[in-house]
Amino acid sequence: MSHLHKRVLGVDPGLTRCGIGVIEGSVGKALKLVGVGVILTSSELPLERRLLQLEEELEQWISSHQPDVIAVERVFSQHNVRTVMGTGQAAGIALLVAARRNIPVVMHTPSEVKAAVTGSGRANKLQVAEMVRRLLNLESIPKPVDSTDALALAICHLWRGSGDSKIEAALKAEKSRISKLVQR
Amino acid sequence: MSHLHKRVLGVDPGLTRCGIGVIEGSVGKALKLVGVGVILTSSELPLERRLLQLEEELEQWISSHQPDVIAVERVFSQHNVRTVMGTGQAAGIALLVAARRNIPVVMHTPSEVKAAVTGSGRANKLQVAEMVRRLLNLESIPKPVDSTDALALAICHLWRGSGDSKIEAALKAEKSRISKLVQR
Repeated sequence: MSHLHKRVLGVDPGLTRCGIGVIEGSVGKALKLVGVGVILTSSELPLERRLLQLEEELEQWISSHQPDVIAVERVFSQHNVRTVMGTGQAAGIALLVAARRNIPVVMHTPSEVKAAVTGSGRANKLQVAEMVRRLLNLESIPKPVDSTDALALAICHLWRGSGDSKIEAALKAEKSRISKLVQR
Repeated sequence: MSHLHKRVLGVDPGLTRCGIGVIEGSVGKALKLVGVGVILTSSELPLERRLLQLEEELEQWISSHQPDVIAVERVFSQHNVRTVMGTGQAAGIALLVAARRNIPVVMHTPSEVKAAVTGSGRANKLQVAEMVRRLLNLESIPKPVDSTDALALAICHLWRGSGDSKIEAALKAEKSRISKLVQR
């Protein structure tokens, strides 16, 4: 596997629904969908049990798919305080699990993710989902819908994460191609 | 050990400084200081490394002191958003570690803690520290100061946590005794 070819596990953190998307590929080449799903924990369970279940299921995803890198969506607390705390804790568990296994982990903001896959930081959920479908060459938008953001995050990371200037150039070309697709 | 006699590990969560206090005792009897300290993680480390270090050191505290129950201060996000997110994630790690070991874990709010040890939910840090010193029969306020809140939390839990009505009565008597001490 080339150092440019990577398997990325994206985590769209949440306590009630935590989206997971695994892709494989490299900049400028076709991307492949490896796995997609959502970890659900019941709001009737005590918080510590929900965090434990999340940790266990994340561990299973990582064991099954052996990602080279994990991308976690960066959480902001401009919204509902209660929800944001749970989301932040879920993100913390994802970071912890990655660090424990020595898997590189990077955070990207929602607008970085949107910009990477659609060319616009203000794209809506459907536009992101549709671009994810096209970029992964799928016949329909992956289900559950929650997982689309996790896939977009993984794609964003694959294109942004390397910090290699040659890749930056390829990424620029790719973005321009995507902008055109979106504008159609 | 009576079911009323318990060893409690209190966690005052924080990413930069996480206070730890371990006490032993039962309602209406003398309390004993078992251990006290602070887990420090460097703000120069990536977040995932800080969370991992926190987990590892919490595991060591639990292994060394074998608490019957863990009490974690409940985090509110009325303050600095960035700090609160880290504090919430640190609390999440403490909850996770407890759940993984099947140790009961309970959260108490700062004002519950203050009220339990001083008789007033609006007591200041020094009043709390001084009551912790008296309740644990120490010659001076435990150091580092950060750990005083964790000890207060552990004491609060010991008195509040059982939900037993006989204990509630004893607690009431204890509180009245404390209020008098504070008023002196």
